[in-house]
Amino acid sequence: MDVQIIKPSILPGFMELLPGDQILFNDMMDRIRNNYEKFGFLPIDTPIIEKSEVLLAKGGGETEKQIYRFQRGDNDLSLRFDLTVPLARYVAQHFSEISFPFRRYQIGKVYRGERNQKGRFREFYQCDIDIIGNENLSIINDAEIPSVIYSTFKELGFDDFTIKINNRKVLSGFFQWLKIKDSKAVLRIIDKLDKIGMSGVGEELSELGLNENIIEKIKKFMSIKSSNEEILDNLKSLNIDNDIFKSGFEELNFVAKYIKDFGVPEKNYVLDLSIARGLDYYTGTVYETFLNDYPKLGSICSGGRYDNLAAHYTKRSLPGVGISIGLSRLFSQLMEEKIIENKKNFLTKVLIIPMDDCLKEGIEVATILRKENIYTQVYTEEGKIGKKFNYADKLNIPYVIIIGSQEVKDKAVTIKNINSGNQETMELSEALKILKN
Amino acid sequence: MDVQIIKPSILPGFMELLPGDQILFNDMMDRIRNNYEKFGFLPIDTPIIEKSEVLLAKGGGETEKQIYRFQRGDNDLSLRFDLTVPLARYVAQHFSEISFPFRRYQIGKVYRGERNQKGRFREFYQCDIDIIGNENLSIINDAEIPSVIYSTFKELGFDDFTIKINNRKVLSGFFQWLKIKDSKAVLRIIDKLDKIGMSGVGEELSELGLNENIIEKIKKFMSIKSSNEEILDNLKSLNIDNDIFKSGFEELNFVAKYIKDFGVPEKNYVLDLSIARGLDYYTGTVYETFLNDYPKLGSICSGGRYDNLAAHYTKRSLPGVGISIGLSRLFSQLMEEKIIENKKNFLTKVLIIPMDDCLKEGIEVATILRKENIYTQVYTEEGKIGKKFNYADKLNIPYVIIIGSQEVKDKAVTIKNINSGNQETMELSEALKILKN
Repeated sequence: MDVQIIKPSILPGFMELLPGDQILFNDMMDRIRNNYEKFGFLPIDTPIIEKSEVLLAKGGGETEKQIYRFQRGDNDLSLRFDLTVPLARYVAQHFSEISFPFRRYQIGKVYRGERNQKGRFREFYQCDIDIIGNENLSIINDAEIPSVIYSTFKELGFDDFTIKINNRKVLSGFFQWLKIKDSKAVLRIIDKLDKIGMSGVGEELSELGLNENIIEKIKKFMSIKSSNEEILDNLKSLNIDNDIFKSGFEELNFVAKYIKDFGVPEKNYVLDLSIARGLDYYTGTVYETFLNDYPKLGSICSGGRYDNLAAHYTKRSLPGVGISIGLSRLFSQLMEEKIIENKKNFLTKVLIIPMDDCLKEGIEVATILRKENIYTQVYTEEGKIGKKFNYADKLNIPYVIIIGSQEVKDKAVTIKNINSGNQETMELSEALKILKN
Repeated sequence: MDVQIIKPSILPGFMELLPGDQILFNDMMDRIRNNYEKFGFLPIDTPIIEKSEVLLAKGGGETEKQIYRFQRGDNDLSLRFDLTVPLARYVAQHFSEISFPFRRYQIGKVYRGERNQKGRFREFYQCDIDIIGNENLSIINDAEIPSVIYSTFKELGFDDFTIKINNRKVLSGFFQWLKIKDSKAVLRIIDKLDKIGMSGVGEELSELGLNENIIEKIKKFMSIKSSNEEILDNLKSLNIDNDIFKSGFEELNFVAKYIKDFGVPEKNYVLDLSIARGLDYYTGTVYETFLNDYPKLGSICSGGRYDNLAAHYTKRSLPGVGISIGLSRLFSQLMEEKIIENKKNFLTKVLIIPMDDCLKEGIEVATILRKENIYTQVYTEEGKIGKKFNYADKLNIPYVIIIGSQEVKDKAVTIKNINSGNQETMELSEALKILKN
């Protein structure tokens, strides 16, 4: 029977890795997860498909156009486009079964039908944490979040990164004091600083109709760069008589004071009055994180404080603070820039090659190694020995154990370290010691 | 501004857990994953959305009606309904970059718009392993698969389970020898034995038009139950002169011989000539796994050997063998039957409660514990002490550390074991020893 061959391919904008890279990706995901758990965040796993009326309760905006939305029977369905809206729905739905403050993490795929461009994915992993309070949530949590970011990126192998911290109230209070009406529009322009530079920000503020005097004040404000203490002193000395500003200043002051106790070294965070975050959503502390040697990657971990998580699903006030890592994008950027590389990533530690008629003995050794939790594969196919070694090499398997009739007779194994090339025959117990190292 | 409240809910047939249960679920998933990796299986992660023409290349059948399929722009898209079709596409697409034999595992969500019924999910996790050969794949792999099943379910805490093993060729050779024309139809009827019993099988075979003499022979054949060796002797003594039967018998013999060397105890596997597997797909060895005390759960892990994985995507011959665990279904059944329970599942080990003005010191202790990889939360909200202890209790957090002014003065901490009720004040280094245990 002739079968019609269909070209095997996936959709553009979807990431799919070979096992070597997948091992690296999973390793990053595991480290993020373990760090989130270390700080007391608990897992949830919401459905990828939700009711459109629930997922799109907020409505409008850029995101809605990007949503994968479809009809099935009588149901109007959508794929989740972030993990925050499902969290809001989850907390409102399970409110009576949840203990507050509710610390949850979720790591999962989200979907956005973005314009196809390099480094942007239509299916990608987000790794989110949020702390949700019932009616209230202490500002201490805002000081703790940077320590989660710090610990996570340290654990991912990074040293030279900076967590930039600001407070939306400081900005919006300042704008109010300047008698600017559309402060949200100003925030959105400021958020583009990285992309369009200070002169670009100036131009866009001018297009917004602000006068030169005001624009100069905003630019000067955004440019205050010095030590964290000096920034706070500087802010104080501006004598801005606005309640929102004052409240934001107090919060920023508090966060700066406690962040040290949470173990974040001074070199890894900075107060930065130019950090705005594009989303309307945030109402207080905001965070962005940058790799100092690769600023063009943009923020690799962002988030902030919001007054009310779930206004569309409940009348309760549920303030929160959280961050998100867009792992698929980050991974692809790190690979692209060769900041991480799939050199010698492996899971399987030993390939057993049974010679001649020693299959039974090879299997027995594999069974012993696996009981010792040593990840082991038996090469069971026919073929030349060179091909089998080549297989170990291609899979980055660091050790090969050869079992032939001489080894069986001597109750020994021959073990080869693929990296050093060293090969030695020894008792299995000796080989076990090497492999357990 | 008044916001319209939308009732927060998810679609029927979708599983969503509270964190306590999610911890248990994730723990099971981790154990399965680690066991798969121990046997040399490497991870892949294919997209959940694929091109419909690719995913539905095989076409027809019950599954197609259940597919979540939709149009977006010019693209006809579908959500994956298993992990096998994506594997076939993956191997054909990445053929030149893959080393064979290719051992991969994939754990992920799949989608089937099934009729809404208890214990059936529309979004559920599958945990699959497969070994794919290029042109050939040794029968040794068929003997190894039961050892992966055994090791996995042992690691999940089960003892009393049976892996039932058969070979499709033994059945189809036998049917051919009986001169039955539609042997696939007979296989499908036999596969229903668990549900309809031997008399039901007899009736359906009769409806198929088989005569009573043949039906009796089939029923007798299916009823051969004894030790594995006796079954093989019994099969041999039937003197069935059919090449397919003989080939299947040799394979079954081989699998039975080597399965012991792979460390599977005799009590955990059995040759069972009544195991057929419903899918047309399988061509040799087939597996089903049962919890002996809960037969009504049905098979909790099934799979088998297939001649050709990717006939729809490549002209290459890619034989394979694999198994799948439907984890969402299994988890929900185990919870339902109270075989597993969310009693005291926790991730966070310590809740720190800072008293009076000891917030700074509480945070410092948390930072020290986290550096020692002890999962820690600081309770930062206002409230009565009883409420805070209650919080630890609800989250199953086993230890509470209290830090008040006396403790700060004495450079000590007070640690309470929530389960025993014991409370003691000691140096932090002493508390660390307890927590690391």
